[in-house]
Amino acid sequence: MAYVALTGGIGGAKLALGLARVLAAEKIAFVVNTGDDFEHFGLHISPDMDTLTYTLAGLSNPEAGWGRHDESWQFMAALDELGSETWFRLGDRDLALHVTRTQMLSQGATLTQATRRITDSLGVRQRIIPMSDDPVRTQVHTASGPVAFQHYFVRDRCEPAVTGFEFAGAETATPSPDLATCLEGCEGVIICPSNPFVSVDPILAVPGLRAALQASGAPLVAVSPIVGGAAIKGPTAKMMGELGVPASAAQVAAHYAGLIDGFILDERDAALDGTLAMPTRVAQSLMVTLADRERLAAETLEFVNALRKGAV
Amino acid sequence: MAYVALTGGIGGAKLALGLARVLAAEKIAFVVNTGDDFEHFGLHISPDMDTLTYTLAGLSNPEAGWGRHDESWQFMAALDELGSETWFRLGDRDLALHVTRTQMLSQGATLTQATRRITDSLGVRQRIIPMSDDPVRTQVHTASGPVAFQHYFVRDRCEPAVTGFEFAGAETATPSPDLATCLEGCEGVIICPSNPFVSVDPILAVPGLRAALQASGAPLVAVSPIVGGAAIKGPTAKMMGELGVPASAAQVAAHYAGLIDGFILDERDAALDGTLAMPTRVAQSLMVTLADRERLAAETLEFVNALRKGAV
Repeated sequence: MAYVALTGGIGGAKLALGLARVLAAEKIAFVVNTGDDFEHFGLHISPDMDTLTYTLAGLSNPEAGWGRHDESWQFMAALDELGSETWFRLGDRDLALHVTRTQMLSQGATLTQATRRITDSLGVRQRIIPMSDDPVRTQVHTASGPVAFQHYFVRDRCEPAVTGFEFAGAETATPSPDLATCLEGCEGVIICPSNPFVSVDPILAVPGLRAALQASGAPLVAVSPIVGGAAIKGPTAKMMGELGVPASAAQVAAHYAGLIDGFILDERDAALDGTLAMPTRVAQSLMVTLADRERLAAETLEFVNALRKGAV
Repeated sequence: MAYVALTGGIGGAKLALGLARVLAAEKIAFVVNTGDDFEHFGLHISPDMDTLTYTLAGLSNPEAGWGRHDESWQFMAALDELGSETWFRLGDRDLALHVTRTQMLSQGATLTQATRRITDSLGVRQRIIPMSDDPVRTQVHTASGPVAFQHYFVRDRCEPAVTGFEFAGAETATPSPDLATCLEGCEGVIICPSNPFVSVDPILAVPGLRAALQASGAPLVAVSPIVGGAAIKGPTAKMMGELGVPASAAQVAAHYAGLIDGFILDERDAALDGTLAMPTRVAQSLMVTLADRERLAAETLEFVNALRKGAV
């Protein structure tokens, strides 16, 4: 692949869609966080993989940021009637994806294989691979103990103050076997504007993955998920405050120091341009429209290519 | 309970509804075939239990005979889109029942307990118990080997010729612990007009269950599922032909000989009245309307009570 992008769910999927639209399908592969994965009602749910899959398949719900746009909720209504847990919303059509994946896994397929079958069925032409076929489960540490990520994120609405994170299972996980193929001939790696702590760090925590990215020789560029001291989406800024670090783009750049070769700042943070430990590029990074996504993707690629050519 | 009825799905559930309507809720309990149960997509599906549950909850689909009347099929549509198996139709709302049951079982509940929770949630006031909490799985033997019941019944549309039946797991199963309570003070046991081979025999195959029915001292009455040489519903007559026995009410009575104290014949089989090895009663046993169900229930109870009082 010419380019490989690391991404979590909603925020990262916006840039991922932009990249998918400005590049030929065979030029880009996505490596997705599976630290959010969990078992619910016996189903293997993979929220970030699903968000990206639906986004690239043109099936996503743009208002919610997750799930499908053509969704109905009869299953949830009946579940509620039966007095069962309803904190995690599963749409009727979305359920079919989880059931299909779970069945394939139970029959011995890997998550990489199950994802391939699902994305193919839905007409996604880009490669989407999980960071690992092994279970890695993000635990959010809080004052009242560790909480599984989806419980923190969905059930508890990110309310508990975080004290740290743990990626259970990461020590013994290996990268998806397709990672090496994706990195062949790689000209650039993009870290999408996802949450550094719970979307990107789990990917980087898979032993060998970080080294593989670096060994590719391709420049690594991260796009800041923090704009003007606030998170575009999600709890990134709130978490930074709770962890006692400034909720700033500079802090995100520092978080990735030693890994990335370049960092993309939003126009609101233009004052930081040239002040960080790595080359920076200022861009309009709020992605409201499809054109915004395409423009940021193009600018990111341009920056990556300039870094590769030593032109920065 | 004053009365206990053994039943399978669709055909038996018609009389079960009649019994539920003519008796106070605390006077009747239903012991249901679970030989049809199977695992599909990791879900524990219990077709006969579900048909009876929906029937007594007023939620059943009267046209199909199974499933819910207020059903939608978005899950199946999405499953088809993903290229997954769609031979077993799971409605969006129906799915919630299977998910709830499967979750309870995985958390250690018995099928009896899970059923109680589900029927309570749906407002069913009568007791519905599975024949056993242990797995018993009906295998239909055919010329091309054994087939799991739902595969024979739904996927293969009862097309293969049957050569026999096997109730895998029955040897080591025990009756639902609630059976004994249901049989306390029992004044009559009714075998609903269900398929003798695949709906009633699995129940009777649970060691100790037949003996418990007989030890109750209550008269046992079966209602013929064969009327004028044809099955009212389902493959009963076809099976009898394939097994080389006449598809007749007399043959069904012979099948239950040694167990039942009385047999209810349809008017079309009135010629058999008084010719069988046990007392018989002729009734209008086709249940088209709700009134038909109630009338047959009342006549069955009247026959049972007459047998108990020695008035037959």
